[in-house]
Amino acid sequence: MNEKNTLASLGENESLRRTIGLLVAGENALVGPGDDAAVVSVSGSSFVVTTDTMIEDHDFRLDWSTGFDLGFKAIASNVADVAAMGAVPIALTVAIALPGSTNIKFLEDFAAGLNAGIQELAPGASVVGGDLASSDKVFISVTAHGDLQGLAPVLRSGAQAGDIVVVAGTLGRAAAGLALLQSDSDAKSAFDDLVNIQLRPQPPITAGVIANKAGATSMLDISDGLAKDASRIAKASGVTIQLDSSALDGFKAVLELAAMRLESDPSNWVLFGGEDHSLLATFPQGVEIPREFKPIGSVLNKGEHDVLLNSEPLPQKGWDSITG
Amino acid sequence: MNEKNTLASLGENESLRRTIGLLVAGENALVGPGDDAAVVSVSGSSFVVTTDTMIEDHDFRLDWSTGFDLGFKAIASNVADVAAMGAVPIALTVAIALPGSTNIKFLEDFAAGLNAGIQELAPGASVVGGDLASSDKVFISVTAHGDLQGLAPVLRSGAQAGDIVVVAGTLGRAAAGLALLQSDSDAKSAFDDLVNIQLRPQPPITAGVIANKAGATSMLDISDGLAKDASRIAKASGVTIQLDSSALDGFKAVLELAAMRLESDPSNWVLFGGEDHSLLATFPQGVEIPREFKPIGSVLNKGEHDVLLNSEPLPQKGWDSITG
Repeated sequence: MNEKNTLASLGENESLRRTIGLLVAGENALVGPGDDAAVVSVSGSSFVVTTDTMIEDHDFRLDWSTGFDLGFKAIASNVADVAAMGAVPIALTVAIALPGSTNIKFLEDFAAGLNAGIQELAPGASVVGGDLASSDKVFISVTAHGDLQGLAPVLRSGAQAGDIVVVAGTLGRAAAGLALLQSDSDAKSAFDDLVNIQLRPQPPITAGVIANKAGATSMLDISDGLAKDASRIAKASGVTIQLDSSALDGFKAVLELAAMRLESDPSNWVLFGGEDHSLLATFPQGVEIPREFKPIGSVLNKGEHDVLLNSEPLPQKGWDSITG
Repeated sequence: MNEKNTLASLGENESLRRTIGLLVAGENALVGPGDDAAVVSVSGSSFVVTTDTMIEDHDFRLDWSTGFDLGFKAIASNVADVAAMGAVPIALTVAIALPGSTNIKFLEDFAAGLNAGIQELAPGASVVGGDLASSDKVFISVTAHGDLQGLAPVLRSGAQAGDIVVVAGTLGRAAAGLALLQSDSDAKSAFDDLVNIQLRPQPPITAGVIANKAGATSMLDISDGLAKDASRIAKASGVTIQLDSSALDGFKAVLELAAMRLESDPSNWVLFGGEDHSLLATFPQGVEIPREFKPIGSVLNKGEHDVLLNSEPLPQKGWDSITG
């Protein structure tokens, strides 16, 4: 086998590009692959749909996450994608595969985590279907659906030069929590608020439809890190995004103590850490920005780089679901 | 760990019962878990949604199935569930996880299989989103969506005593194909039509909405075998289903030669073989039954047994996705 043509050597983006390009577009796909979610037309209406997968030892470890944690996180990461389209989550399907030797208690905990995630983040939604199968490793695949309630979806491609860049939710806390879990230190218990964000993210779901109603021009959920996800808006919109480092100081400040304990740089967590599932959006100047969102930068005409931190180019490192 | 409480010892049905019962129902779930698919209300309309999972070495083997086969089968098995609700398939999401060492060609073949499955079985539908991840074994999870076009969904629970039991599509061919693949004989090439049904099922998708318009009282797709799936309608509807063995002779006849070659009983394939994804339905007497469907039995008042073959109880053996 030619090593240059493996998925690992190509990475997620290139592998997806080379296969999604082959898929035939359908008349019902109002928004197809490439955004946080798709929009599908159905007689008299439309709905938002997105899917995400979590795999043992790739996306989670069973010595860190309980069944409850996994159920909660599966809900959080998926309804965040629905919210990022400016829609209200209404329904989910959940497929889980796990070893036959698993105790039923684990599955019951998982269901309790699903319930808790829905109750806290998306009340009114529910799990409407699922699939249970047998496998060597735990595999969880969730598909989430949303109702745009007559509004247009907020895409990644609508940012315009002059817009204000804003974020709702936390930055870097999930990455700090992951670093704490990976460390041998007893710092885990001292900073359990950060660990808990990694295990059970708390994305600001209701801010999604609020941003839509308030006139957001683009939006996505930050799953792979601020730098990488900002570059996605920049690429899709044909603009450059300039982040203001001083506006990020508050996000760093709450991570300082944990960073000192682990001898880490909190800026790395804020700029490159994924899995907070916060909402990154752009608004036109002059629009009243909803209080859930904090300004962190501005949209410039397309320049040499996709994302700048003040005037310096920001590398697009971050999580790649194939290469890690 | 108490062995009595493992998923393997409880089996799929009991494991699902003990966890689905925990899930909180939502206001948007017009039809919740338990049927072939759910029905979700969205502003001004509703949609059908179902999800299904295929796992390497549990549901398929890579020495039997190509990437193309897997893409085709993933479409077929999921749009069959949409059709079984009496809806038209409109959109799918596809999550696939596979080893990083996989050549991109496999993924491209998979995409070609998705396209072919849609083109042959559900033209007008499309893959609107997906997820690509890394795992040790190949894992495929598909969610399919359908449009009821203003009709009511056809549930499993609507069969009534006096109804006629009908089937559209093949019975036992996929099981015969599996037996051929499992055999060491060179019979595989002699009966490649049966092997092909196992690898790339051909469910009668358009018959679903035709049955709905014609007044079907219940319907499901036969994924786990005629006996087991008939018992699902019987249980959900509170009736007994009586199958007429002479009406099944035609299904057996086309399997006779392969059965002789493998020294197998073709009745076992017809009654207990899964994965044809044919549509089993009931119609009231006096209704003109669409020509896609063949009568194979009748619905009786609930008796001691869920399913009878002529006057004998039919065991409900068949595929269990946890215990095999």
